[in-house]
Amino acid sequence: MNIITCIAPVNIAVIKYWGKRDEKLILPLNDSVSATLSIKEMHAKTTVMASPNFKEDKIWLNGKEETFQNQRLQSCLQEIRRRAKQKADNKGDSISNWSIHVCSENNFPTAAGLASSAAGYACLVFALAQLYDVSGDISGIARQGSGSACRSLYGGFVRWHQGSALDGSDSIATQVAPESHWPEMRILVLVVSDKRKKVSSSAGMQNSVNTSELLKYRVSHCVPQRTEAIVKAIINKDFDTFADITMKDSNQFHAVCLDTFPPNVYMNDTSHAIVNLIHSYNTASEKNKVTYTFDAGPNACLYLLQSEVPKLLAVLNHIFPAGNESVEYLQGIPVEKQAVSQEFIAAIGMQPQEPGLLKYMIHTEVGVGPQVLNEPRHHLLTDAGFPKASV
Amino acid sequence: MNIITCIAPVNIAVIKYWGKRDEKLILPLNDSVSATLSIKEMHAKTTVMASPNFKEDKIWLNGKEETFQNQRLQSCLQEIRRRAKQKADNKGDSISNWSIHVCSENNFPTAAGLASSAAGYACLVFALAQLYDVSGDISGIARQGSGSACRSLYGGFVRWHQGSALDGSDSIATQVAPESHWPEMRILVLVVSDKRKKVSSSAGMQNSVNTSELLKYRVSHCVPQRTEAIVKAIINKDFDTFADITMKDSNQFHAVCLDTFPPNVYMNDTSHAIVNLIHSYNTASEKNKVTYTFDAGPNACLYLLQSEVPKLLAVLNHIFPAGNESVEYLQGIPVEKQAVSQEFIAAIGMQPQEPGLLKYMIHTEVGVGPQVLNEPRHHLLTDAGFPKASV
Repeated sequence: MNIITCIAPVNIAVIKYWGKRDEKLILPLNDSVSATLSIKEMHAKTTVMASPNFKEDKIWLNGKEETFQNQRLQSCLQEIRRRAKQKADNKGDSISNWSIHVCSENNFPTAAGLASSAAGYACLVFALAQLYDVSGDISGIARQGSGSACRSLYGGFVRWHQGSALDGSDSIATQVAPESHWPEMRILVLVVSDKRKKVSSSAGMQNSVNTSELLKYRVSHCVPQRTEAIVKAIINKDFDTFADITMKDSNQFHAVCLDTFPPNVYMNDTSHAIVNLIHSYNTASEKNKVTYTFDAGPNACLYLLQSEVPKLLAVLNHIFPAGNESVEYLQGIPVEKQAVSQEFIAAIGMQPQEPGLLKYMIHTEVGVGPQVLNEPRHHLLTDAGFPKASV
Repeated sequence: MNIITCIAPVNIAVIKYWGKRDEKLILPLNDSVSATLSIKEMHAKTTVMASPNFKEDKIWLNGKEETFQNQRLQSCLQEIRRRAKQKADNKGDSISNWSIHVCSENNFPTAAGLASSAAGYACLVFALAQLYDVSGDISGIARQGSGSACRSLYGGFVRWHQGSALDGSDSIATQVAPESHWPEMRILVLVVSDKRKKVSSSAGMQNSVNTSELLKYRVSHCVPQRTEAIVKAIINKDFDTFADITMKDSNQFHAVCLDTFPPNVYMNDTSHAIVNLIHSYNTASEKNKVTYTFDAGPNACLYLLQSEVPKLLAVLNHIFPAGNESVEYLQGIPVEKQAVSQEFIAAIGMQPQEPGLLKYMIHTEVGVGPQVLNEPRHHLLTDAGFPKASV
């Protein structure tokens, strides 16, 4: 088998990764914790193929050829090949000298700003590991492609350990709990309309490390405590604590971005209206029923338990009415419609916003890590090693 | 003279006051620094009158009678009366036992969210001090009305010292430099359209003290250095450093508000668009030409030197076109119109925003502290002690 196709999931951090202590090895300043989202709703799909006929390494991303002369891509490929040669069996020996072709695509719009590079690098490294028959932890390799990619190599709830070794060998991801541990957990991604120029996470976090005084304190004093507490909350399925820490860490991450100079502002007025709604919803519920987290963009990721989904959706449809976008407003796992009481709406005390502030919502759950797709029809490359027409 | 009318200025902090160590005495967690804005464009005006005929203390604010049974009002009045009696001369002795009537108004819309309580309490305490013939520092009394009011008792650039005494006796304001020291300094207040509910500063900062971990670090590690550095920059008329620290401290204050739980969000998308514009403007100018600061609301206060005003205004008119409000778009000190080069606009690289994001702009300068108005026509109370019809 010189061709392999895999899919890998998106992950959404509840303790945020923001700031590197080593730019080249992509070693973080703090531990982070995430949940891996179901591969059914969102995934990256990658085909890798090795052949003695290929003249050079080539890569196509979302239908467009890109350069392979990219430091992060090279780091991943070289490290996988090094590990393959270490094994020194026949297979690794032969094909690791051949050139490869890579074709990758996401099944969700990259415009949604949903950590596509994490899923993409996790998928690439996982596929290469299959191709070259590399075993053992590969999260430390995916990390060198895109830091948070290491967390997409495991299903369920995942912790990326900052590690202390200079070579980064202990900066790897481990599973906190498998996807079966807390089966009631659901995620609702609210894709927010936004027109602004985006500052890349990579540039943004480097600037925070260089200029934010508050980041130092966050890293040394706040995150270590929170990480231990949220891992415990996950193990105990303690939603109230999980929700509390998730909101606080998201807010603190965006506070550090604002303390960066010039400031990085990722959340917009709609993002903050969602935050207000969730706090009002929880207050009206007399308990944390929903929690929010925002990555380096305006979209909200809400975590909640399955039993709460119909009610929250009814409230969301009321407060954030759909605009006239052509897409389905609710995507992903279907939800039975439920009416919400006027008393509860009144208790929330928030007026409906103008239609169209949200583009759409994706309803999903916690899922497994990367998977191999065995059937040839899944391959994104033809037998000759070029993208299929459909891509 | 049993009646006195005074006016007092607004001040805008460049090192922000956020967080009290004593709620009752209003003692801050850190020093703060501000400039006092010219009384010509914005002021509070207060008439105080004492009479043996008044049955009880009464107060009218902006045309409406309010209760005098307000802890902060009582603290100020009692402290002034205590000081008057200490002097034990005839005047203090006689009238400090009479009831008083107070009438106060701002010459700028309170809706603008422009630190009206600071000007108001400074004016009240200054007027009472005249009425009761109290001398010496009265900033520590105004502080007990509204913390930042103590800074409005001096003109020019002012520092509020946090102090260390338990009774707050050393938590007072002093002048860093008089208004004549840096006569080129100008202030442009951009009043931003906003529909959201406002969280009061007082409630907001208490919540920050209770919940923000980053506030602790800001107070202990960031503000002390910045305060010394900006005082030096003011004394040296070093606009570049002044601008740098002012922007950073505003951003950090709002970062702490975001780190508060639930988060306090005072800036909106328009505020952040102004921030982006100022950074682009300075980059295109290859120097800090303008600096921004935001209080607990969406309005921007820009500090800049007089020579830069016409160019900045031309850029602002281009990027933030006026809406169809009935008010003058530029208020305050008149500015000669200037065209701005297409190259400079292109270097800024920001598209014009939709009209009406700003309600209006107030152009002002650094000015003097509170003043007594001697002519009877200025009094807001009639001879009988009730608001004049015009109020």
